[in-house]
Amino acid sequence: MTAAAHVVTVGALPGAALADPEGAVVAAALMEAGVPVASRVVLDEDEAALERALTPDDGLTVVIAGGGSAGDVARRVVARAVGARLVLNERFLAALEERYRRLDRPLPRRAERLALVPQGATTWPVDDGEPGWMLESGARALVVLARDGLPAALAAHLVPFARARFAGRGVVLVRTLRAAGVTLAEVEERLAEWLGAAERKGADVAVVPGDGEVWVRLRARGATLAEVSKILDRVEAPLRAALGDDCYGRDAESLEVVVGRLLRERRLTLALAESCTGGLLGHRLTNVPGSSAYFERGVLVYSNRAKEELLGVPAEILRTHGAVSAPCAEAMVRSVCERAGAPCGLAITGVAGPDGGTAAKPVGTVFVGLAVAGAVTSRHFRFLGGRASVKWQSTQAAFDMLRRALKGRT
Amino acid sequence: MTAAAHVVTVGALPGAALADPEGAVVAAALMEAGVPVASRVVLDEDEAALERALTPDDGLTVVIAGGGSAGDVARRVVARAVGARLVLNERFLAALEERYRRLDRPLPRRAERLALVPQGATTWPVDDGEPGWMLESGARALVVLARDGLPAALAAHLVPFARARFAGRGVVLVRTLRAAGVTLAEVEERLAEWLGAAERKGADVAVVPGDGEVWVRLRARGATLAEVSKILDRVEAPLRAALGDDCYGRDAESLEVVVGRLLRERRLTLALAESCTGGLLGHRLTNVPGSSAYFERGVLVYSNRAKEELLGVPAEILRTHGAVSAPCAEAMVRSVCERAGAPCGLAITGVAGPDGGTAAKPVGTVFVGLAVAGAVTSRHFRFLGGRASVKWQSTQAAFDMLRRALKGRT
Repeated sequence: MTAAAHVVTVGALPGAALADPEGAVVAAALMEAGVPVASRVVLDEDEAALERALTPDDGLTVVIAGGGSAGDVARRVVARAVGARLVLNERFLAALEERYRRLDRPLPRRAERLALVPQGATTWPVDDGEPGWMLESGARALVVLARDGLPAALAAHLVPFARARFAGRGVVLVRTLRAAGVTLAEVEERLAEWLGAAERKGADVAVVPGDGEVWVRLRARGATLAEVSKILDRVEAPLRAALGDDCYGRDAESLEVVVGRLLRERRLTLALAESCTGGLLGHRLTNVPGSSAYFERGVLVYSNRAKEELLGVPAEILRTHGAVSAPCAEAMVRSVCERAGAPCGLAITGVAGPDGGTAAKPVGTVFVGLAVAGAVTSRHFRFLGGRASVKWQSTQAAFDMLRRALKGRT
Repeated sequence: MTAAAHVVTVGALPGAALADPEGAVVAAALMEAGVPVASRVVLDEDEAALERALTPDDGLTVVIAGGGSAGDVARRVVARAVGARLVLNERFLAALEERYRRLDRPLPRRAERLALVPQGATTWPVDDGEPGWMLESGARALVVLARDGLPAALAAHLVPFARARFAGRGVVLVRTLRAAGVTLAEVEERLAEWLGAAERKGADVAVVPGDGEVWVRLRARGATLAEVSKILDRVEAPLRAALGDDCYGRDAESLEVVVGRLLRERRLTLALAESCTGGLLGHRLTNVPGSSAYFERGVLVYSNRAKEELLGVPAEILRTHGAVSAPCAEAMVRSVCERAGAPCGLAITGVAGPDGGTAAKPVGTVFVGLAVAGAVTSRHFRFLGGRASVKWQSTQAAFDMLRRALKGRT
């Protein structure tokens, strides 16, 4: 087994959906630097569980101590694991004092306890956050970072340290191609003939389900970042060609990032009309910094009255076809574009569930309306899954429709 | 070390922020049933890493195989770990055939491979999804579940199995009190005198950072669910009293769930006007099933033009005070309520960053406007953190303002 990095977060509840954003950030930063990350673990403040997670291999374990008493758990367990005593580390204490001086706040009573770290540990101070520390013992390295100050500690200490530590031991890079508007089975079938070739070029390829999309994951190992990048480039090209327009981006490029770039390049603005997604489309669009350059406005027309008043959807359409219908989606998108003076528009209306479904329009029935420069179209979808999943898939479908329409225009 | 459950997801990228929603669901269901969950692990499709995660203790390990080839990895590693051969399991194959018959789709070519499970495994079929399987070996139990069909497998198989397995070995329950509008330090200080008493009653209490809120986590161990619940009830009461109105809910009760319940009980409707949050407020509100009973409409007024046209915010306010100001927030909320005919309203305007900050209004400056039955107020916040965090904290603040205003009304 090759040495790898492990990321462990202590003090997060394993049963919480968003228990570990910090662990994901650390793992992503290490992977981007070419360091193989074998696992990410979420633990409650549990000394026995942390002991188990600190395996005695020759890798690197990064422990993120989530505030409160988690830091105490981490320092006790790491000290025991390497057989070191906890001692007052003067450099750590000085870094803490400096931190509180900057904050213009008195040093908390627990400061001296925080500065108790295993003998032999190296202090990793950061300008804006609590210091971390690192301990090498035999072939392994153990790092404990505080949540507070994590980005700075990553950039200044962990990434350079990990890169140096794994240098010469080979580099693993993972690259993810993202595809929308296709099923897993379709992608598997379309790529089948390329997988053997990829392996011969030195890369593993796996087709895995993303969230409302399909990911094709390329992984290669080699001596240097440059070498591995070249392997991945060679493998990526034919896979991309086989995926065609269904492949919309790579790695951190989400659909909203890609759609935003297309709008910006074409100097177009976008208006939104959301019913069943309730704001998720606008939320995703505005997660991208600088989205005010192309996002003009949106309306969340959750009631029929709002559909009539804010968008002038004819009562006739609502009566004859219902709010969940192609004519309604098209009326919504046409109107929001006109009123906003925006050339592009998206509208979503559907049944997110768990209630509100009928035999003709079961839960998961969604209509997406698209407008590009006056041309209005709509599509009918039937999504499976719970409320959150139907909302998410609806926004995936809407962004993907707009993406494909914009790609055709230059 | 007491036996505990471990949840492992295979085929998720450790560096992805939302890598493991399924693992969280499984861990939460086990914890709710009183089964202690010691860890949750996210692994790429990596046999060595999975081998490490399957420790030979006397606990229960639940492996979620995330589709694609992850199921192959899981069955190979589990078989090796217990020294069993992979054999074609007829009951598993029958369950798969039944699944595809229901879907009215042909059995995929990989079906026979899927039905290869370790000798001695018990098939766990579900009505709507791929079957899972379970293998007991010595003192430990290993369960492999497919992503597809997870909720059904949990309810029908895993939870009853785990409950029976851990019965008599003691039960651990965790309860989380959620507080908003206070800092971690304030909560720690306010609860300091109660923590000793909680320990004497047999519970651990930890104050940990939530996301834009503070969590007080109670954990107790005992012989039966009833006994442990009683311990937690006794500990919870004085802590709740000390937290007062700052404690808004427990466990899965998010702010949007609590706000929704208050609106429904008072038969009030809500209208939203969002600028910098771009739809997140509406998205969170509509994540709650049945929210159409109280959510009338929202507007995403990302441009000044939209603020004027959709809300009639006076150009004078935008010119004199700017869009990020208390007068603008108040004009927004007043207008959206009037136009929607809704008695309650929330408006958010601010600088989410990373660009757009000024010396007077740095990134993180946010104004929230609140209307309840014609009474309009606003508050000024200064949030730290990146774009996503500022958006999230803004919605936390807005929901919390509405919650406190509604609690005062009966």
